[in-house]
Order: sequence, then C-alpha cells, then structure tokens
Amino acid sequence: MATNIIRYRGPDEVIAWGVVTGSGISPLANTYTTTADLINHGEADWRMALAQPASLRMNQVIPLSPITAPCRIICQGANYRQHMIESGLNPDEKTFNIFFQKSDASINGPVEPVNIPDNVRLLDYEVELGLVFKRAIHGPITLTNETLPDYVIGAVIGNDLSARDIQLPQGQWFKGKSYRGFCPLGPYIAIFEPGDFTYLDALTLTLLVNNQIRQLDETRNLVFKPVESINELSTFSDVDPGDVLLTGTPSGCALRAPSPGRRRVLQFLFSESRLWKIFVSTQSKRTQYLKSGDVVTAMIASADRVIDLGQQETRII
Amino acid sequence: MATNIIRYRGPDEVIAWGVVTGSGISPLANTYTTTADLINHGEADWRMALAQPASLRMNQVIPLSPITAPCRIICQGANYRQHMIESGLNPDEKTFNIFFQKSDASINGPVEPVNIPDNVRLLDYEVELGLVFKRAIHGPITLTNETLPDYVIGAVIGNDLSARDIQLPQGQWFKGKSYRGFCPLGPYIAIFEPGDFTYLDALTLTLLVNNQIRQLDETRNLVFKPVESINELSTFSDVDPGDVLLTGTPSGCALRAPSPGRRRVLQFLFSESRLWKIFVSTQSKRTQYLKSGDVVTAMIASADRVIDLGQQETRII
Repeated sequence: MATNIIRYRGPDEVIAWGVVTGSGISPLANTYTTTADLINHGEADWRMALAQPASLRMNQVIPLSPITAPCRIICQGANYRQHMIESGLNPDEKTFNIFFQKSDASINGPVEPVNIPDNVRLLDYEVELGLVFKRAIHGPITLTNETLPDYVIGAVIGNDLSARDIQLPQGQWFKGKSYRGFCPLGPYIAIFEPGDFTYLDALTLTLLVNNQIRQLDETRNLVFKPVESINELSTFSDVDPGDVLLTGTPSGCALRAPSPGRRRVLQFLFSESRLWKIFVSTQSKRTQYLKSGDVVTAMIASADRVIDLGQQETRII
Repeated sequence: MATNIIRYRGPDEVIAWGVVTGSGISPLANTYTTTADLINHGEADWRMALAQPASLRMNQVIPLSPITAPCRIICQGANYRQHMIESGLNPDEKTFNIFFQKSDASINGPVEPVNIPDNVRLLDYEVELGLVFKRAIHGPITLTNETLPDYVIGAVIGNDLSARDIQLPQGQWFKGKSYRGFCPLGPYIAIFEPGDFTYLDALTLTLLVNNQIRQLDETRNLVFKPVESINELSTFSDVDPGDVLLTGTPSGCALRAPSPGRRRVLQFLFSESRLWKIFVSTQSKRTQYLKSGDVVTAMIASADRVIDLGQQETRII
C-alpha cells in the first residue's frame, strides 16, 4: 500500500511535508528543504507520521509541487500506442525511445494557475505518469522489474504543458515545453512499497478540460516500459534522488498532426516556413487548445484505488 | 586581461584549481568542490594566486573539465551565418533561436579520450564558445552589454560531439548529443574583466582533426548574440553559477545535409524511416566522420591573444 506524501504551505504560511490519510494530513516532524532531502532522510519520519492521526484538514493547506528545483525533468515522447498510431508511427516497431528535457523552471504547483505566455497561441495539455528517482544513477545500468524499486521511490502526476506553435516549428521541444508554469506536478508523491510496483502497468490516466474528458488511457499501453526506458536513459544521462522521468502522454491532446501521407504532399508543395504558417493557422481553429479561464483536471489512479496519485486542478489565465 | 583558471589532478593525485601563468600553474590556496563554489567564493584566492610565481609545470598535471556536474549545459543550434546557410536557413531572417540541452553526464576532460558508443556510426565534432554563468537567473531578465558581466563570468571551449545517426533520425537532439564523454570542456575557464567582454564578438574558433583544419570561424558571425540569447533563455529556463551556455558551432562539420529543395523531393518520394536509412548510408561514406584513432584539437582565442581559452585534445577510441 503506497504512502501519499504532500508538500504544502500550512495555515502558518510555513512550507512543510505531510502524509495524506483518509481524513487529512499528518505532518512530518522534520523539515526537508528539497525532495532529495526527504527521500534520503525522511523515511522513518513519514512512517511515524503515518501512525499518527491527521492534524490538518486538506482545505487548511495549499498543496505545492512535491518535486523541488533544481532537478532533472526528463521526458519521453510518443510513448502510448494510440498516440503513436495517431502520430503516424507504428507502436509495434518500437523504433526508438524519444527523450527530451523540460526545464525545472517550468515546475508548477498542482493547483497553481498557469499564464499563457504572450508569444504563445497553441497551448496544449499532456497528462503523464512521472517516476520519481530514489537513488543516483551515474553510469550505465541494467535494471529488472525486481531491482526497479531500488532506484524508483514512486510516482507523481505531471502535466507536460506544450506551446505547439513554438515546440513544433522550432524543432527542438525544450523551449516550447519549458515556459514557467508549464509543468504542474503533484499533489502527491506516492511512495511505493515493493509490492506496489506491478501497479505501474495498471494505472488509469484521466485529463479533463472544464469537466469534459479529453485524455483517458492506461499505463499498460506504454510502448517503452519504465525498466527499459531507465536502462537506455542511463547510457546518456545521470539521475539523482528527486529527479523525475515523465513517461509520455496518451492520445487526446488538442494537437492534430496531418497523416504521414498528407504531410509528404504538403512538404513537397510548400517551403518549411510556409508549412508552419499553415500549421499554426489550421490548428488555431481547433477549439480544444487551452484558453484563459479553462480549468484542466488531471488524475492518475489504479481501478482498485490502492494507488491514487490525487488530482491536479490548473486554471489557465 | 582575462585570468585563465584550470582544474587539474596534481602530482599528488589530488584535484585542485590553479591560475595559468606564462610558465605554468600557480595553485589556489583553497579547495573548491564545484565550479559554483569557485565562482562564489574563489575570487580573492585566484587574485592572490595570480600574484604568485608558478609552482607547477603544465606537464605535471592532468587538466580536468573546469565545469563540474551537476550543472545545466544549455546549447544553441545553427547559430553561425555560414552554418545556417549550409543548412538551408537564412541567417538574416533570424526566425528563431534553437535551444536544447546536453546531459551533464556527457562532460569530459579537455584531454580525456572519448569512446564511440557501440550503437553509434556517425560521430561528428562541433567546436563551440561556452559562456559560464556567474549569478543565478531565476526569472525573466533583460540584460544589456553593460549588465552582461554581472551574470557571465567568462568563457570555456566546448566540443558538442554528436551522434548524427541518433540525433537526426530520432528528432530530439538530447540523446544523440549526450552520450558519456560527448562534451569535452576546458582546459580553462577564462575569467573576464569587464573590459574583456567586447572580445566575445572577436574570438576565432578552430577545430582540427589529425592536424587538418575542419572548422575555422569567428564569433562576430554569431547570429543570436549572447545578450539576446540569455534574455530569451531566461523566459523558460533558470541558470545557476557554473552552468554553461554553448553558443553553437560554425560550418565545417562532417555532416552534409541535403539542400532544402532536394530534401523536399526525397521527403515526397520516400517514407520517413526509408529516408533515414538513406541518410545514414549516404553519410557513412563521408570520411570526415570521426573514427577510432582520430585526434580532435579545438582552440578559441582572440587574434591578439588577450583572450586565449587554451587547447583541447580529444582522442577518439
């Protein structure tokens, strides 16, 4: 049974950590400046807090991102079967695992509003399962399902907000996915017990905009699974405790890319800069892109609720 | 007049920092674990060392990367005029500034060999001017040439080694540019005095493979200059002392991309996966790609040698 840990601003305005119980929050006895600090030194503390009754109600606190900066936010692209098919890729080929980074400046609390930057017209949402690292990886590693719990402490909800009109025309995704506020995380880190790890393949991701379902899929449809993804990642990146791997988003985003066939014809007919002008103007007509006033709700849980990462609510302004 | 600082493994096997003088190295009195630590606390120390005679000969030490991990390595793509023209882009349009990241796992010493990963066939070189940050930027900022010295402490040579057969077919550049060893840095951080900053526009970059010149260009041909680049970067990324911005590479890499016209025809005729097979097989015939035994030499200096960032020598194995 996983333990949900929350980082919050309490009634006294002080930032603290607590364990979430049915009825509220049981605060940890000690302070932890960073997520790494909590992971490295907090276990006895959160186990003790778990045995205490809740002393704070959820509505007395403001939940903050349970992942603190500086940290690495490493992301995978096109990693759900249906999303790959819609992008014109064949998930059974598993040609390659796309990795990129979001800046840690993009980290946002789970109920904090997000400003649309002045230069952005096409703001899109992407609910993702985030794996939180427990132990440093500073060289190539070969994990198995049995050793994964030594390196991953649990999971968090991430929303990989993306400015499609920057991300796609500019080719490299770092900028268009990194504007300040573009990575709501939390509300909880679910600390997994070894027996909970099989749930990584049995979680349901749901994203709603103004209470209307836009994304709904299950982690069993992940094309590159956590173990193989972390093994490949270790060949070219280090990770440290408190870093996050966002494992990709399912279908249902606002973005509609042209089919590969149509794309080939368009690429032949138009110059690249003309093509992207057509792209932005076509996409602008899609009402699914986020606009001021929209509320994005994101949830990840198992069907039996043994794992429940909570709920994000992000107002767009 | 800039001060060149070196990080090295000394005759006693201990890692230390020193100031480079004409005749050798004058060690700093104190130890600094990280580049940030040196930048934040080392100034009095390096000014004192500068006034002392050298007590170590250069051949008594092994130079190490003067940039320590963890840190951010943020990079710019296609940022020299001739390189843009060869890539089918118009430098006068300055449509957008491409940013991406290399992992800090890729950091390599300035004379440390680099292994070609087993899965890589097309290893390419890219000499780049690296700007080293002095002060944290944790929000949007508007620098001018006058305030740049408050945020940038100086410069370093970087080689943005790139596996073209991973980087380009996989679209996102993070992986193909981040394998361990793919970012030789150093040998020196040149600490600029305020009067040295005009040299940022007057440096010559040179890269040789087996003593044959492959890249030779000047920083005055940078399309997006340091001030405007850092200003844009601050809208979507934080930086901390000791982080690096690699400002892009000039023309002369092993890579030869097809012209935009030819690319459009190829894209129309072939599927994406077929196209990349053709790309890898065509490029494989180019003898300019790095192979085992090659030695890459990289230098950056002003014509009058007031600024001289030293020389990297990277053996490929």
